[in-house]
Amino acid sequence: MASLKVPASVPPPHEDAEQLHKAFEGWGTNEGLIISILAHRNAAQRNLIRQVYAEAHGQDLLKDLDKELSSDFERAVLLWTLDPAERDAYLANEATKRLTSSNWVLMEIACTRSSHDLFKVRQAYHARYKKSLEEDVAYHTTGDFRKLLVPLVSAFRYEGEEVNTMLAKSEAKILHEKISDKAYSDEEIIRILTTRSKAQLNATLNHYNNAFGNSINKNLKEDADNDFLKLLRATIKCLTYPEKYFEKLLRLSIKKLGTDEWALTRVVTTRAEVDMERIKEEYHRRNSVTLDRDIAGDTSGDYERMLLALIGHGDA
Amino acid sequence: MASLKVPASVPPPHEDAEQLHKAFEGWGTNEGLIISILAHRNAAQRNLIRQVYAEAHGQDLLKDLDKELSSDFERAVLLWTLDPAERDAYLANEATKRLTSSNWVLMEIACTRSSHDLFKVRQAYHARYKKSLEEDVAYHTTGDFRKLLVPLVSAFRYEGEEVNTMLAKSEAKILHEKISDKAYSDEEIIRILTTRSKAQLNATLNHYNNAFGNSINKNLKEDADNDFLKLLRATIKCLTYPEKYFEKLLRLSIKKLGTDEWALTRVVTTRAEVDMERIKEEYHRRNSVTLDRDIAGDTSGDYERMLLALIGHGDA
Repeated sequence: MASLKVPASVPPPHEDAEQLHKAFEGWGTNEGLIISILAHRNAAQRNLIRQVYAEAHGQDLLKDLDKELSSDFERAVLLWTLDPAERDAYLANEATKRLTSSNWVLMEIACTRSSHDLFKVRQAYHARYKKSLEEDVAYHTTGDFRKLLVPLVSAFRYEGEEVNTMLAKSEAKILHEKISDKAYSDEEIIRILTTRSKAQLNATLNHYNNAFGNSINKNLKEDADNDFLKLLRATIKCLTYPEKYFEKLLRLSIKKLGTDEWALTRVVTTRAEVDMERIKEEYHRRNSVTLDRDIAGDTSGDYERMLLALIGHGDA
Repeated sequence: MASLKVPASVPPPHEDAEQLHKAFEGWGTNEGLIISILAHRNAAQRNLIRQVYAEAHGQDLLKDLDKELSSDFERAVLLWTLDPAERDAYLANEATKRLTSSNWVLMEIACTRSSHDLFKVRQAYHARYKKSLEEDVAYHTTGDFRKLLVPLVSAFRYEGEEVNTMLAKSEAKILHEKISDKAYSDEEIIRILTTRSKAQLNATLNHYNNAFGNSINKNLKEDADNDFLKLLRATIKCLTYPEKYFEKLLRLSIKKLGTDEWALTRVVTTRAEVDMERIKEEYHRRNSVTLDRDIAGDTSGDYERMLLALIGHGDA
């Protein structure tokens, strides 16, 4: 469930566009006005505002926001205002660049979006970067990471609920054998994780747990840890319990010495319209404090207000 | 250019559907009537006929055709009548089955369709088989073949004409190094062939030719031959000169001792609405005889008539 709060009666897009334009005028910017509008409009409404704004002012709203805002608040507003597929394409592209490279972001986008949404990301990537997503991922990764990430971002998983129990059993056995042999990047592990439907994978991992007495991630933790093993466990978490994956990411990004705004902004802007309510529940349960309170304690100013608005804090 | 000939004035779909229904009635089937209708309707028209037929007779036209027809003629009519994406999904599925398995068919579908058409095949595969195409390909292949085929069928290549010349040079060098080392299934060769746009790949292979004095396929022929090398060369041919690939496939399927109707039917039904005119040109140039004449010499009866109609022989 989404945390985004859209008021019962939304002004027509040209009014929103005018208000935003006013917020940029004169000395200083009216950040409160920007938040009160953009943080309370859904993707379709934000797209319309961008269109109308461009027609009225001959300028992309995102360009003007970029000019007027700065630092963490700017990144939050820009990411949020983008269309979801465009936003994911942007984040994925950033994740292939040297200074901002992140295998985790690529995995997260590939594993927590629906098959159709992931395909829309690949289309948006073509349009924006004149290249394919898998092309950049393959070019900028190597070794085991490439072996895992390229099929993950190229997948178009079946999304039906059908489960083949025989197959679940045989593939649980394969996974267990390979893990027992410490062959973590074996092509059979990669094949199963990158091609099976989430329902089928879930059945396989449940059977793994039943047959071998431990969850797969527990077994994957028994060896000396390394970055590939961490990514593999996160992949499994994203495919089976995305809300737990996001809860942990939020927890670590808030609790660490110096907040990780990069991750915090990404999770809030990408999940507010999807499953942030579930993530908040999970967060409360795991930390005995609400996400609202932790975000308020760790951030400040317009950035804080923007994040709180997106996670549905207070009244719309 | 398509070879399919659609008459200037096409009867409404319910009339075509009625005529087809009549062709099935009584003792024996009127094959001529079936050819005169179906072999002269484009994909959208055939879809409409199927819809109208199902509404009027409570039965899928394909089921009735299956009941009435037999052997090579049946396969040609059924494949042709299917919607292109559905047909490719069917052929790809067949190519993953034990008795009809074919790495070539999978490669051919992955490399000669446009990116969007390949994605439509993947959607049709979900709908028809309740699984994903890459899932079945990964499951039913092993080793080097899997390494090549899974990314090929999962690709969503960029289709713009932009070319990065620096990249073409550096990747031509990589390809040449790996081939000189006989590392034919090296992950860099796979990466370049499976992710780059066709325009970029073309530039890379042109540079290969200029810099190293031989075409890549010539170099790939210098070693003792094996099935993987053959598939690799065919992949390169499909990505750069699809009409030459299809010409050769037709030539071999006709010239071999006993015609290979399986391949002949596939090429004719999948290319008639796409680029069969170019393939016929290529065939004539390479064999000094027209494709029409060779097909007429090597096939007979309704099957011959069906193929000739699809390649645009005589009047519509």
